[in-house]
Amino acid sequence: MKPVCLVVGAGAGLGGNVGKKFSAEGYHAVLCRRSDAEGLEALVEDIQAAGGVATGYLMNAIEDNAIEDRIAAIEAEIGPIEVVVYNLGAQIGNRTLEDTSYKAFEMGWRLATFGLFRTASVICPIMEKRGHGTILVTSATAAVRGNAGQHSHAAAMGGRRMLCQTLNAQYAPKGIHIAHILVDGSVDAPDTLGKMLGPERFKELRETRGAADGLLQPERMAETYYHIAQQHRSVWTHELDLRSFSDLAWWNH
Amino acid sequence: MKPVCLVVGAGAGLGGNVGKKFSAEGYHAVLCRRSDAEGLEALVEDIQAAGGVATGYLMNAIEDNAIEDRIAAIEAEIGPIEVVVYNLGAQIGNRTLEDTSYKAFEMGWRLATFGLFRTASVICPIMEKRGHGTILVTSATAAVRGNAGQHSHAAAMGGRRMLCQTLNAQYAPKGIHIAHILVDGSVDAPDTLGKMLGPERFKELRETRGAADGLLQPERMAETYYHIAQQHRSVWTHELDLRSFSDLAWWNH
Amino acid sequence: MKPVCLVVGAGAGLGGNVGKKFSAEGYHAVLCRRSDAEGLEALVEDIQAAGGVATGYLMNAIEDNAIEDRIAAIEAEIGPIEVVVYNLGAQIGNRTLEDTSYKAFEMGWRLATFGLFRTASVICPIMEKRGHGTILVTSATAAVRGNAGQHSHAAAMGGRRMLCQTLNAQYAPKGIHIAHILVDGSVDAPDTLGKMLGPERFKELRETRGAADGLLQPERMAETYYHIAQQHRSVWTHELDLRSFSDLAWWNH
Amino acid sequence: MKPVCLVVGAGAGLGGNVGKKFSAEGYHAVLCRRSDAEGLEALVEDIQAAGGVATGYLMNAIEDNAIEDRIAAIEAEIGPIEVVVYNLGAQIGNRTLEDTSYKAFEMGWRLATFGLFRTASVICPIMEKRGHGTILVTSATAAVRGNAGQHSHAAAMGGRRMLCQTLNAQYAPKGIHIAHILVDGSVDAPDTLGKMLGPERFKELRETRGAADGLLQPERMAETYYHIAQQHRSVWTHELDLRSFSDLAWWNH
Repeated sequence: MKPVCLVVGAGAGLGGNVGKKFSAEGYHAVLCRRSDAEGLEALVEDIQAAGGVATGYLMNAIEDNAIEDRIAAIEAEIGPIEVVVYNLGAQIGNRTLEDTSYKAFEMGWRLATFGLFRTASVICPIMEKRGHGTILVTSATAAVRGNAGQHSHAAAMGGRRMLCQTLNAQYAPKGIHIAHILVDGSVDAPDTLGKMLGPERFKELRETRGAADGLLQPERMAETYYHIAQQHRSVWTHELDLRSFSDLAWWNH
Repeated sequence: MKPVCLVVGAGAGLGGNVGKKFSAEGYHAVLCRRSDAEGLEALVEDIQAAGGVATGYLMNAIEDNAIEDRIAAIEAEIGPIEVVVYNLGAQIGNRTLEDTSYKAFEMGWRLATFGLFRTASVICPIMEKRGHGTILVTSATAAVRGNAGQHSHAAAMGGRRMLCQTLNAQYAPKGIHIAHILVDGSVDAPDTLGKMLGPERFKELRETRGAADGLLQPERMAETYYHIAQQHRSVWTHELDLRSFSDLAWWNH
Repeated sequence: MKPVCLVVGAGAGLGGNVGKKFSAEGYHAVLCRRSDAEGLEALVEDIQAAGGVATGYLMNAIEDNAIEDRIAAIEAEIGPIEVVVYNLGAQIGNRTLEDTSYKAFEMGWRLATFGLFRTASVICPIMEKRGHGTILVTSATAAVRGNAGQHSHAAAMGGRRMLCQTLNAQYAPKGIHIAHILVDGSVDAPDTLGKMLGPERFKELRETRGAADGLLQPERMAETYYHIAQQHRSVWTHELDLRSFSDLAWWNH
Repeated sequence: MKPVCLVVGAGAGLGGNVGKKFSAEGYHAVLCRRSDAEGLEALVEDIQAAGGVATGYLMNAIEDNAIEDRIAAIEAEIGPIEVVVYNLGAQIGNRTLEDTSYKAFEMGWRLATFGLFRTASVICPIMEKRGHGTILVTSATAAVRGNAGQHSHAAAMGGRRMLCQTLNAQYAPKGIHIAHILVDGSVDAPDTLGKMLGPERFKELRETRGAADGLLQPERMAETYYHIAQQHRSVWTHELDLRSFSDLAWWNH
């Protein structure tokens, strides 16, 4: 039975590519996303066409028990979840405080913070019993600095980063590797950046900045995700950043 | 009409002492706390006995509209809120992940993160119209590092810190001074530390470590809160730490 | 005998104003600067005219024994140094790596890092014997992030910040308060900013951005320096930032 | 002609193992260390015995022109330096301020900060002309927090970290990948930890904590060094940490 790599938030960009990488390396990729059954099916078929094993589920992570039940079902029916890639974003674009509704603020937290907490609450005890496991958390610059207009996103991601630290503090000694992967730039991702920009502007961006490696390429990010998951337990990375060579680091002007 | 200093979370420790300091300096102290009408009344009377002006309200901040309505009423009936001291804590002691219920995790966020967001959503537009105002946010070490057992608290405080940054980024240029005050140690506070320890242990701690200035004295903290609120707008502090001389800083071992 | 406040780096901007503030509060201000005997004399006379006590010395801090001998002489002839304000900057403007000579890199370290180490090596044991003392270190954004062109400055200031932490770790429990004051913006200082810009551009900047409180006013900064020096030992601040309300914080874009 | 991986600080621990890894992947490993010609020769022979290519030099990095001349000679005689691993440490154990001589403080800076500056000053312009290159800098916890007793080490490493940022800011857009690798724990390294502890205590530590993966294994660290050097330029990591699963992260208590 193959070990499972569960991707929560498996779009055509980072999540899907991480699934591809892990399946190519021998994992059963279980891909979950909220919507777009067709896109999900295409990802699964891509993996299978390449000789890998994958299963896809539509899952609305913020629904009660959606994550919990899915994890339980995977463990019962597919195999042991060895790696979780928590890849749910909560970027809603820049909005002033007045334009950030209570609901939008809470939604950020539900996706970015509480969803990880729920996932960890279910999977960590299981991984602890096995003595090993990996949780890779995609994070954003907003986890370490709050720009104007990022009220919901930054609060959610800042909470997520601290949660990664508390999980690491409790579970690393039990053999669970938790990594906070700070993505400091725009990912070449059709389902997120592509939708935000619209097809024309996205196409143009890809042909200019993207062609010059100025957008993070998700299949390349996946290599680092995989590397982190394979680190020997004597040399674990908890936090790292990823950005294009041509982007200023978030701390620079 | 005196400017108002609204303290959200006005126990006998830090919140109450900040209220006393601001009332002594000419503010109308409006003290809000969830429970203990008697303790609240005692604080108000102390201030009045010292020649200051104070009003107290019991307020359960996590209830819908509790903060919003209170702010509206103060602005309508008492005076312009010049300073908000957001002093609600969310420390629930060390708990393993298994012992941190979804409810406890959410409660941390409601008190420490969402409550500040709601407060800011109401008061910032009002302060912006006036062109000035100050929001002093009491924070904790858990805002910058997540220890094992602090899943709820650290996630909530990490979100709070990022929210302070986004608020500052939007509102500092409008004349609103937001400060994140990181309290890195135990405060000599009967309503929080005292209740956690019980009367005997608290008494003993005060007589030993407290007597050697090893507990943060809330009336001394209040002096720094007041100083920050009086900084000229050409020299604002956004983030500072406070700890006893005899405590190791959180980053040291 | 008045307690001494020794200012290392006492120009007409921050250093001089901190000297003025402390002398107004009862300290004997001892002002040291590398050059401009006339400017130094003017500062001393200003303080004396205001009823304060001040002494000025020209001192080239990077010369062997200059700091050490000066401190010894002050302790012997003037009085106990209660407060040191270490205010030597090392900003040399933006220079590419190719344009940063070994000498320039070393000079940054000598001024910003080694000079503080030498100062602390002499004064900390003296303060430790007395059981109290304060060292206020003026720092810069370059202490926490390295921009292109800041090779010398950032390396020097990054080292200085860590040194402040090691000094605090050893000496806070002995009663010595060390504070790292991160000045995140342009100070309205004739001897530094003024010289960099030249008289005309400086005058213009003052009349525009300065008039709108967009430059840090050194006499206002001095109030915070003084406040930090007066904090009760149960509530010491080790690190804080200062910036104009209209400046973006260094972490924001 | 093989690309060169130059290791500055090539002991039997991390430096040597990084050399082995890169040579196994097709690089010509050029190993430099201050002393122990025999140990150096053994490393070179190990690599050659494994079918790799290696050259070793004794080099006292703090001597004038030692680094500069070595780099020039390698470029002229061996091949283009594609990767520099700057691995010089400056840990001298815990010493109080009184026990940290000016010379020791300066030595820390010469090894940890200035040496990297000199290296970068020579190699960055060369790499820039080629449009690519990688500089991997081994760093320590002391780069991000200053413990008591670490006056020299922390000041040196704090400066080094900021220098990595300024180098990255100037050179990443030119194709030079600079990574700051924070080693947060004890490495199973005979030439550093081994010498500090002495043979008996080191042997015991290896058989207990080491056997339980509680010491960072240098051959495993080397895998991450190699991975970082191979990251596609659209997804570069600038900063990451490495620690054993059983060690508390530096920020935790």
